Amino acid sequence: MNFCSHCAGRVSLRIPPGDRLPRFVCEACGTVHYENPRIVAGCIPEWEGRVLLCRRAIEPRRGLWTLPAGFMEKGESADEAAARETFEEAQARVEVLGLYTLYNLPHISQVYLMYRARLLDGVFAAGEETLEADLFDESMVPWDDIAFPTVRETLMHFFADRRRGRFDVRTGTIGPAPWQRPPAP
Amino acid sequence: MNFCSHCAGRVSLRIPPGDRLPRFVCEACGTVHYENPRIVAGCIPEWEGRVLLCRRAIEPRRGLWTLPAGFMEKGESADEAAARETFEEAQARVEVLGLYTLYNLPHISQVYLMYRARLLDGVFAAGEETLEADLFDESMVPWDDIAFPTVRETLMHFFADRRRGRFDVRTGTIGPAPWQRPPAP
Ligand SMILES: [Zn+2]
Ligand SMILES: [Zn+2]
Repeated sequence: MNFCSHCAGRVSLRIPPGDRLPRFVCEACGTVHYENPRIVAGCIPEWEGRVLLCRRAIEPRRGLWTLPAGFMEKGESADEAAARETFEEAQARVEVLGLYTLYNLPHISQVYLMYRARLLDGVFAAGEETLEADLFDESMVPWDDIAFPTVRETLMHFFADRRRGRFDVRTGTIGPAPWQRPPAP
Repeated sequence: MNFCSHCAGRVSLRIPPGDRLPRFVCEACGTVHYENPRIVAGCIPEWEGRVLLCRRAIEPRRGLWTLPAGFMEKGESADEAAARETFEEAQARVEVLGLYTLYNLPHISQVYLMYRARLLDGVFAAGEETLEADLFDESMVPWDDIAFPTVRETLMHFFADRRRGRFDVRTGTIGPAPWQRPPAP
């Protein structure tokens, strides 16, 4: 951030009076520009016992498999965001059944909210950011080609909890993946 | 938003190619400025069966009672944010026990994440944004002077679930409070 989005004045990074953290503060009009973590909302969409996964057509992690998920928008709820992303990425209409996992990713200031869901009619197709979408039995999940640790964790818990017959909400904090860590010095 | 925070160019509100929603796009450098919902994280801090509430020293809802909560910062997890806000607003150190409620407030683009917690040592005091802090038995909660619907809902569920002896995560979407709605035409 270089300039104030309100008045185009220069901003500088400093701790405003009464605050604890450095913020971008406008030197002209005094506006404090806060930055906040972002929510990624997605689904574990089920159809006849199988789970719908998408192969990513975009970076990061192009070519790898993920659950449909994306940034929550202003004016919607997290479950609406999860259903919207499922339609955008996998062209699938779902009923959202309930919150299932909350993962913090503090190194990239994201919070993942993943919801259990069921396809309404079994229809799906690759959306614009997806190379292909497909339904997987637990035994067919491409575990070595899952795009993100949050998705791997969510899927592993999901199948275990489904066998157990009970889905409690699971939460956790996940650090950088190997491909996100800086190389050793 | 009037100007680009990157180059100080004028921004205009339009739908970028491949997008679905209007965004602030810089007419000079093309940067798309996304806006996202914000997370409010807080605690239901318990000590010897009583719950710690704070009377707000700031607007909105100055003078009314709330659970300690505030905006999550970049680089922290939601449970860390909940504990930090509890210390800032009520000078109380807590152990966070688990996620308890998730409430969507789409009309103001916020997601509330409230955690069960217990005071480590029973010590508390009013923080800078708090007029007074106090511990309340269920029968003493000032129900008519609770600041926010999210806090009221969280507290009502909390006491019911505590009697029941089981705390499942509760989620929901809450619309504008009466004092947030525009006056009837
Ligand atoms: Zn300014
Ligand atoms: Zn620009």
